[in-house]
Amino acid sequence: MTRPMRIAVTGAAGQIGYSLLFRIASGEMLGPDQPVIIQGLELPVAMNALEGVAMELTDSAFPLLHGVEVADDPKIAFKGADIVLLVGSRPRSAGMERADLIRVNGPIFTGQGQAIDTVAAEDAKVLVVGNPCNTNCLIAAAQARRVPRANFTAMTRLDHNRAVGQLALRAQATPAQVKNVIIWGNHSSTMVPDTDRATIDGRSVPDLLDSAWLEGPFDETVRERGKAIIQARGKSSAASAANAAIDHIHDWFLGTGDQEWTSMAVPSQGQYGVPEGLIFSFPCRITGPWQYEIVEGLELSASVKSKMQATIDELASERETVKDLL
Amino acid sequence: MTRPMRIAVTGAAGQIGYSLLFRIASGEMLGPDQPVIIQGLELPVAMNALEGVAMELTDSAFPLLHGVEVADDPKIAFKGADIVLLVGSRPRSAGMERADLIRVNGPIFTGQGQAIDTVAAEDAKVLVVGNPCNTNCLIAAAQARRVPRANFTAMTRLDHNRAVGQLALRAQATPAQVKNVIIWGNHSSTMVPDTDRATIDGRSVPDLLDSAWLEGPFDETVRERGKAIIQARGKSSAASAANAAIDHIHDWFLGTGDQEWTSMAVPSQGQYGVPEGLIFSFPCRITGPWQYEIVEGLELSASVKSKMQATIDELASERETVKDLL
Repeated sequence: MTRPMRIAVTGAAGQIGYSLLFRIASGEMLGPDQPVIIQGLELPVAMNALEGVAMELTDSAFPLLHGVEVADDPKIAFKGADIVLLVGSRPRSAGMERADLIRVNGPIFTGQGQAIDTVAAEDAKVLVVGNPCNTNCLIAAAQARRVPRANFTAMTRLDHNRAVGQLALRAQATPAQVKNVIIWGNHSSTMVPDTDRATIDGRSVPDLLDSAWLEGPFDETVRERGKAIIQARGKSSAASAANAAIDHIHDWFLGTGDQEWTSMAVPSQGQYGVPEGLIFSFPCRITGPWQYEIVEGLELSASVKSKMQATIDELASERETVKDLL
Repeated sequence: MTRPMRIAVTGAAGQIGYSLLFRIASGEMLGPDQPVIIQGLELPVAMNALEGVAMELTDSAFPLLHGVEVADDPKIAFKGADIVLLVGSRPRSAGMERADLIRVNGPIFTGQGQAIDTVAAEDAKVLVVGNPCNTNCLIAAAQARRVPRANFTAMTRLDHNRAVGQLALRAQATPAQVKNVIIWGNHSSTMVPDTDRATIDGRSVPDLLDSAWLEGPFDETVRERGKAIIQARGKSSAASAANAAIDHIHDWFLGTGDQEWTSMAVPSQGQYGVPEGLIFSFPCRITGPWQYEIVEGLELSASVKSKMQATIDELASERETVKDLL
């Protein structure tokens, strides 16, 4: 029998965690042949709720679920973890600037990065979902001595999927027909959705859809979607964020199917003029299980180029804000 | 291409709905080759929230999701539906007896049964999740003139899965190794978990586990699990209930794999002394897509027989409470 993979999840009793764990346990993340053990982390105050979630996982009788463990200490929750999903983070409170938010999250991700480096599997794969995810990932990765730094990634797949969803709606196509969208940069309002090479049912998006819509409403919808969801639901995106985490890990492990690439925020090695080390969303090609490479040599349009600088500058400034933690 | 199936879901923006819709859209309920269109129903007051859920479904870019529609009128939401999941119901308020609860839900399920009979596909499959689900199902089925009454089912799969989960934990096995549990009767505290023919990794449960545990803590845990979840989570079971709905429909459509049977509450034709017409949980064998048959001729132990009468009596009394609606 295939050895079960250990999946550590932080914020496991939160909204995203609750949407995520059952889909991990059902096999959607790692495929129908891969048993899993879930290791949930929560704050001490949420341990009761997490016990309840663990009970519900047991009550689901998932054939692939070989165990559920819970802890309030990352050095326990991350032990032997093959995959670490850093979902929990301190949310923004009223009047808090982005820089403040980054600072309050610093110690959390420093501690979790240390725990990963100390107790997780030596080739652990890390996905940071908790915002600001790119810089939280940078902070965690700074602790990596034993675990390869390239294994630290952050999630822009929700932005990517939102772009796919909007293109499919506009073209009256299905999401499966939309390929090769790119999200560049930071998971923030400076992100750059890029449809220059995207296709729908084999047809070029720039040929198919008018540029005024692409540059205007489409671009704005993708960037501002999080706020629109809060407005409608009264709560932030949870199930769609969990779904994007499933997709990110699924594709990293099992490939992107007939897509050329997907969008993942990974450590820059200087591609496209992005300073080395920043956790930056690039088009990534999956070349084998847990093997990604940044797609290089794409010609960027003037419009994309001009927007790229703002997201690079923002990430560089976020790095400056936390430089004492790196 | 396979024609998309239309799945109507009531209470679509509620806790169970939120856990359910994304797993339907991802293909977990009907398999990886079956496109779906989701048709959500909510109360007028929850339409904003449902719009938000629909946005998140779009944002998940599910390859199999060919459409999301929302409505506050079952005659719109159920239109052409191949599958109708009646998840929403009026919850029990403080001081309300079970009979009161049944009465307040009566008009809801009468209306929804009429809508199914009027606008759903003529061979629509119905699963009632909203409690008291057996009798709510009876009420809805009473409206069926066009849709076959045998297509009206209620959910005891959560109880079934809870039993499997407890047996797996006790025997240190995985849920996939546990087979042929039965839940008899009503989805209420009178239900009868029956492990007389259950096996774990091929070994008979009555041989493997001591009868004091099976008759005592096991039986009680399965019956009282809902309350224990509320106590731990501060909220009722949602993700595990959604999972059981997925399993119920999945197995009804695609079969139970190497299980002899599963537990489904379906209209009795008089088997095992259960009065004809009651919606009663039986072991059901799936003989083809959307084909179930009640497993007949099982020899019941004295213990099971004695408990069966209580759950039969309860369901008969519930039927009496709503006889004017039937």
